[in-house]
Amino acid sequence: MTAKASPKTPRSRRERPAKPALTRQGIIDVALAILRSEGLDRVTMRRIATALDTGPSSLYVYVRNTEDLHAQLLDALLGPVTASRPRAGTWRKRLKALLTSYRDVLFRHPEIARMALSTQPSGPSYLALVDAILTLLSEGGVTARAAAWGLDLLLLYPTAVAVEHTTPKPPSQRAAEFSALATKIATVDAARYPHIARLGAELISGDGPARSDWAFDVLLDGILTATAPKARK
Amino acid sequence: MTAKASPKTPRSRRERPAKPALTRQGIIDVALAILRSEGLDRVTMRRIATALDTGPSSLYVYVRNTEDLHAQLLDALLGPVTASRPRAGTWRKRLKALLTSYRDVLFRHPEIARMALSTQPSGPSYLALVDAILTLLSEGGVTARAAAWGLDLLLLYPTAVAVEHTTPKPPSQRAAEFSALATKIATVDAARYPHIARLGAELISGDGPARSDWAFDVLLDGILTATAPKARK
Repeated sequence: MTAKASPKTPRSRRERPAKPALTRQGIIDVALAILRSEGLDRVTMRRIATALDTGPSSLYVYVRNTEDLHAQLLDALLGPVTASRPRAGTWRKRLKALLTSYRDVLFRHPEIARMALSTQPSGPSYLALVDAILTLLSEGGVTARAAAWGLDLLLLYPTAVAVEHTTPKPPSQRAAEFSALATKIATVDAARYPHIARLGAELISGDGPARSDWAFDVLLDGILTATAPKARK
Repeated sequence: MTAKASPKTPRSRRERPAKPALTRQGIIDVALAILRSEGLDRVTMRRIATALDTGPSSLYVYVRNTEDLHAQLLDALLGPVTASRPRAGTWRKRLKALLTSYRDVLFRHPEIARMALSTQPSGPSYLALVDAILTLLSEGGVTARAAAWGLDLLLLYPTAVAVEHTTPKPPSQRAAEFSALATKIATVDAARYPHIARLGAELISGDGPARSDWAFDVLLDGILTATAPKARK
């Protein structure tokens, strides 16, 4: 099914193939195709209706409004994250793989990441992801309160990084910005900013995946400490 | 100084008070006034120039473009965060107070938070904040690598939460969404999502400041563990 199918020359109803029956999955498939080719802004009820050769009102049985459409889109994208999660390895390895897979989906769809940051998803695939995270935290011995609150941090971090790194910018601009930052750090006034000068290039060391992996460990270690509080420095 | 001063009836140059000399601080003050009254979208070079009764070209000595203007705005807002940081208490208490003060600025200016998430700030006040955080992490015994990478997490978390919670929505809609979420959790299918059902109301327990304070401790504990790695569960 393609979202852009619109014959160049008008054809009579007789010649056209029968319209496929409208289904929720069919709507989501078209929405995904439009998302990939034209971006989230174009994923509107009207646009979907046109692609499906129907009226927007026919869609309301399946989708309440554009916001609901976007939420269903996120949920469709999240389906494989939990379904294909690893079943072997330590709870920490499995949890980090699950969160990395969630992060990868958001990196591929930055506009969906921005939406996920400002809405509260609650579709079945999102709930399955939440339940899988809580299952693994429980397996790791994390207490109820620490799991409940830690869950938010574990989901917020990859979402925020996806939004942070995927604002539409040409790669050349991104490279120029990184280079300017590196220069800024290398030439910083050491009298005024002694610790920035001391750390220097360390501040911009590590690529995205390395930092992300480290961040998940930091969050999990912190959540474990909150579970069994120790004397704090 | 007001950003909206535009006399209803034209006055001759003779009658008008002398224009104040254009200064960077004057530009920022007008930009802050427009930000508070009309939102970040209206903080443009043209709008500032009109408010200052000058042409946009006169501004370019002080500000490169709208993006630079917004960056300078963020820096102006961050000035007091580091300047008024507490000087007594443990390194952890002082660091959490500093980060909470940063969070408060972003909560008051959600549009600035969104901008901070998608750009790399580098103004003097931002650098002072970064240096203050690194100073406190060093005081806490955090290694260079853990401080360099942890810094990003400590700044990202409050920014992301500010963006997450301050998308323009009427309070009634926010309350309705929270209530819908609570109902969803309370009535979740326990066979399908056993851990969501088990945690129940715990998942939405705690207010923003309590969760934020906890999150800073989780991050700091995780960063300390990364500094002195232990056998991992």
